[in-house]
Amino acid sequence: MAAPPHFTGSLGYPPSSPSPRSHLHCLSPCNRAIKVSMSQNQSYWTCVTQKIEDQLKQLIPVRPPLLVYEPMHHLVFTARRTMAPALCVATCELVGGQQPISPNQALVVASALHLVQAALFTHEQLPLTDRPIPSNPETLTHHHAFAAGVELLTGDGILSFVYELLGRSDDPAGGNSERLLRVIIEIARAMGSEGMVDGQYRKMLCSVLGSEELCDVGWVDHVCEKKEGRLYACGAACGAILGGGSEEEIEKLRNYGLYVGKIHGLMLYYHNNRTGGEEKGFTDLVERCTSLALKELEGFNQGMVQTLSSLVRASFWDKSVYASCKYICGKEGGRIQSSQHF
Amino acid sequence: MAAPPHFTGSLGYPPSSPSPRSHLHCLSPCNRAIKVSMSQNQSYWTCVTQKIEDQLKQLIPVRPPLLVYEPMHHLVFTARRTMAPALCVATCELVGGQQPISPNQALVVASALHLVQAALFTHEQLPLTDRPIPSNPETLTHHHAFAAGVELLTGDGILSFVYELLGRSDDPAGGNSERLLRVIIEIARAMGSEGMVDGQYRKMLCSVLGSEELCDVGWVDHVCEKKEGRLYACGAACGAILGGGSEEEIEKLRNYGLYVGKIHGLMLYYHNNRTGGEEKGFTDLVERCTSLALKELEGFNQGMVQTLSSLVRASFWDKSVYASCKYICGKEGGRIQSSQHF
Repeated sequence: MAAPPHFTGSLGYPPSSPSPRSHLHCLSPCNRAIKVSMSQNQSYWTCVTQKIEDQLKQLIPVRPPLLVYEPMHHLVFTARRTMAPALCVATCELVGGQQPISPNQALVVASALHLVQAALFTHEQLPLTDRPIPSNPETLTHHHAFAAGVELLTGDGILSFVYELLGRSDDPAGGNSERLLRVIIEIARAMGSEGMVDGQYRKMLCSVLGSEELCDVGWVDHVCEKKEGRLYACGAACGAILGGGSEEEIEKLRNYGLYVGKIHGLMLYYHNNRTGGEEKGFTDLVERCTSLALKELEGFNQGMVQTLSSLVRASFWDKSVYASCKYICGKEGGRIQSSQHF
Repeated sequence: MAAPPHFTGSLGYPPSSPSPRSHLHCLSPCNRAIKVSMSQNQSYWTCVTQKIEDQLKQLIPVRPPLLVYEPMHHLVFTARRTMAPALCVATCELVGGQQPISPNQALVVASALHLVQAALFTHEQLPLTDRPIPSNPETLTHHHAFAAGVELLTGDGILSFVYELLGRSDDPAGGNSERLLRVIIEIARAMGSEGMVDGQYRKMLCSVLGSEELCDVGWVDHVCEKKEGRLYACGAACGAILGGGSEEEIEKLRNYGLYVGKIHGLMLYYHNNRTGGEEKGFTDLVERCTSLALKELEGFNQGMVQTLSSLVRASFWDKSVYASCKYICGKEGGRIQSSQHF
């Protein structure tokens, strides 16, 4: 998938340019990789996302009873990926928190963030009797591997597992329960009726009404803010909370996450729905969000900031990054989401 | 709704017989009522359920944005009620715990239990494209006040609110965070893929396959254990955890809840699906569960046990109790659930 014109050059962080050695390693989720070859920011994100993927595989194995874990495994690993989980690990490391959290707690919360996304994504694809049939059948690319009832219940099962997982990750000896409860509130709010669920509702409303006036750039902006924006903001804030960041740091990183999520959501929408004529609107939006995002990183350690800020730079959208991360775009990179699945 | 033959007499706790003054008042959710007229166990349950209802009304008001809170309010208050929330308050009082929980924490957790039930109940009624159409249209009594997509998303919204609510109920000064995290795990597990969601799956399987062999008394037993059984067991265990009960007390009350839930589930199914010929099977099951339930209460303070044990006695099934509690059977008592909604 090529980056849209705007994202090549002006905002560019050339893929070939070496970035400084990352300082993001206090949680050491990828220690070996960082020490040996962490010469590019890209390597950091690839490494963290791989660690999260490994953690998810441990958490959601295919095991008996198969009627429970087979659909759960399938839906978790076919759901669209985002960078929100990796952002959680990164902000935890950014604020420098090593104690009193356990080394894996940020990875657990990162996994929980993907599970929430997977459950809501699954519910979004359910064939309900009153959902509109797409005018262009080619856009109906989502394959349902299981009956709708099974996918519905599996989504509910994944959601319950999220909170069980978070609760279980508490280490009473670590005195970290209050921080974990705060993370639970953050995730519940990000997912809830004024967060991602609201974004899904607004999106559905546009699908049903289909009015061009309703579904303009402003509408896309709102949906992206509620869906990807709230998810990324939550990931960034949770990482900072776990890492023991100050209230100011938590809020700045939450804002950073919100803008990054909006940009990623807008990019996804742009790639799946380019109808021409709206490029300027999207470009302006992304530029504004990028500028606001980078502003939120002021004051943090510059070495760390370079890796964090690579998320909003053009090089991140390079196909090779997509492919290596296996994130954002789902499976093996490339165009996988139809407009029905934005 | 008249009680089935078995429940009149042999297991009977005549509605007119006065029971000892309840000792269940340490949380004082209904202090005034208990002091003035708590002469019957029924009054205790009516009072506690009313307190929970009041709490829910405060938590889920109809307020802007109406597109979020109107369906949420509607679905929470039209969902089938159970006695699991009241059981949570009662077991908290039973183990005598007054500190360090805040006076309202058991009521908050009780409300959360109803919200979980409401969200899953909402999802269970969703019109999915591959759900079977009932052979008898008269059994299709469920009225959908909102579009299926809205009801789906509202269910997700309610679930996220549950965990936000639980997290928010923490009082850092009370040093109760670890207990609350344990409650969160209990609720997530009870709801999850090996709990209520599994029960819903088994039920759906029977609806789809429709085999009489598959859907026999043993199947009903399994479904009731997973759905109502796990919900009530969770309610009873959560109350005991919040009240500071010992591990032994928590496990005994969890088992008690499991049997009470199964009995209530079986009763509901019996009332909605009496086809004759299976009465003996149900009677045996309920008798066995009742006996096992009462055994779990041995060793607790006898004054308290009488109120607790009234939940498995015949008088509880008297129509007047149904009507006054507005519980179990939904709105104003009477037969409200079709076989589709068991």
